[in-house]
Amino acid sequence: MRVAFLGLGIMGHAMAANLVKAGHEVTVWNRTPGKMVEGAGIAPNPAAAAQGAEVVWLCVSDTAAVEKILFGADGVEQSLTEGMIIADSSTISPSATVKFAEKLRSKGVSYVDAPMTGSKIGAANAALIFMVGGEVAVIERLNPLFEAMGKKIFRMGETGKGQATKLAMNLQIALIFEGFAEALTLATKLGVDPRQLVSLIEATMVRSGVVEYKAPFVLQRDFTPNFPLRLMHKDIRLTLEAAKEARVKLPALETVEEIYDLATEEGHRDLDYAATLTLLEKWAGIQVKGEAA
Amino acid sequence: MRVAFLGLGIMGHAMAANLVKAGHEVTVWNRTPGKMVEGAGIAPNPAAAAQGAEVVWLCVSDTAAVEKILFGADGVEQSLTEGMIIADSSTISPSATVKFAEKLRSKGVSYVDAPMTGSKIGAANAALIFMVGGEVAVIERLNPLFEAMGKKIFRMGETGKGQATKLAMNLQIALIFEGFAEALTLATKLGVDPRQLVSLIEATMVRSGVVEYKAPFVLQRDFTPNFPLRLMHKDIRLTLEAAKEARVKLPALETVEEIYDLATEEGHRDLDYAATLTLLEKWAGIQVKGEAA
Repeated sequence: MRVAFLGLGIMGHAMAANLVKAGHEVTVWNRTPGKMVEGAGIAPNPAAAAQGAEVVWLCVSDTAAVEKILFGADGVEQSLTEGMIIADSSTISPSATVKFAEKLRSKGVSYVDAPMTGSKIGAANAALIFMVGGEVAVIERLNPLFEAMGKKIFRMGETGKGQATKLAMNLQIALIFEGFAEALTLATKLGVDPRQLVSLIEATMVRSGVVEYKAPFVLQRDFTPNFPLRLMHKDIRLTLEAAKEARVKLPALETVEEIYDLATEEGHRDLDYAATLTLLEKWAGIQVKGEAA
Repeated sequence: MRVAFLGLGIMGHAMAANLVKAGHEVTVWNRTPGKMVEGAGIAPNPAAAAQGAEVVWLCVSDTAAVEKILFGADGVEQSLTEGMIIADSSTISPSATVKFAEKLRSKGVSYVDAPMTGSKIGAANAALIFMVGGEVAVIERLNPLFEAMGKKIFRMGETGKGQATKLAMNLQIALIFEGFAEALTLATKLGVDPRQLVSLIEATMVRSGVVEYKAPFVLQRDFTPNFPLRLMHKDIRLTLEAAKEARVKLPALETVEEIYDLATEEGHRDLDYAATLTLLEKWAGIQVKGEAA
């Protein structure tokens, strides 16, 4: 298929490369120039990239970026053609997604929200899992592209439900990790060996994919960013905004947001979100060997 | 071994029965009379049960109950002999555990805290996992009993560390479930099918032993107690008390305690702790088909 791929961050770059590898005709664009994907054309702006494309795929940072790329100066809107599909793998507002889709529908363009999970390794290995919102027939037309980039898609409902699901998923990641961090802090302060606690967790129903993935880094005190704190913070805020719009109360997530606010004040925004643990440790007066107080 | 088993709740009863099955000489006692275990003797009070026992095993409701059984009228204290081991599988205060152990040490009695995980099915099938605090040599002497009741023991350190670990484990269960409940509420309000959300969770790193176990009940709206809300509430309070003593801040758990307070006010204390979900749904104005508003 002829695909315009907009946004060449860590995830987007790997996804676009996998589309090229699968034989699709890809043109890329990135806000910051200088990025490219081998075998893909490069366009100077979103409108140029979308010119003649059957599918425009977005993977950018937030709601405002998606809006600008679609409807701003030199935006995709300039190059819309009837039957075109716009797919968005960014994590953005579900309600804004519905508005964008409505605006485009009047021009005969379909909109699919397709945020994903699987980290940069999943993106590189075409092993992403997509949470998709949109019409069944439209999603089916995208199947060759999904297959080139991921291992599984879950259709969550009409347009917007993919984003709603993504927020519900990240909310859980944030709370599972917070539970692990609070447990580790309490147990450590009470004299329990963190390694032994992790072994126990993995042998019981307390086990989780999140702790399985994060615990080795935490035990090695390695907070280099895999999923940076500032991005999880952004997703938490987005989730609380969506919850407020929908009149849903999320008490534990609200509390976790405060911890991310404080972690940001402490200068941890570019570390992994696991660095929220260090705040709890600081409050508890835990001094980790070899780390500054 | 000659064992006094004190406390025949759902867990204790199954554990004592497994000790009998493994050939141990068991005498039981329960606060409320009338309970018995086939093949075990019955004693009228803790002192009588402990008479001549090598090991006294407790499995009761809270710190006060353990204290009363050990040191109250007709308590185990009356029947202490040098070399006796007291093992406690209740979930109680780590600091009180240390105090009890110190009091008993002067009389030549060893104390092991051995709370467990594995639910009533694990207790019935001798598949419990014990988190144990105590001296290595003492724990080794208890191995035949652990083997009769459980599938694995994790030594977490000296006396008190088993309880510290248990609190850290239940804290995580409470927060993982709260994350699931908040996610489910938000996703449902935004129009996502709860069953599809659960399928997605199970396919990603958001998966957990807690959701794997609880989701089928939640999807069927079955809140009959497996782990009653009032017991999880008790454990959360115990954890926050232990955290306060140790000067540890647990912000998300504090928030979750408020939800349990409110769920108790709503009359849900004897339902499963999963019924905390219904509060979030009520606040969000979600009306579940077939349930009263």
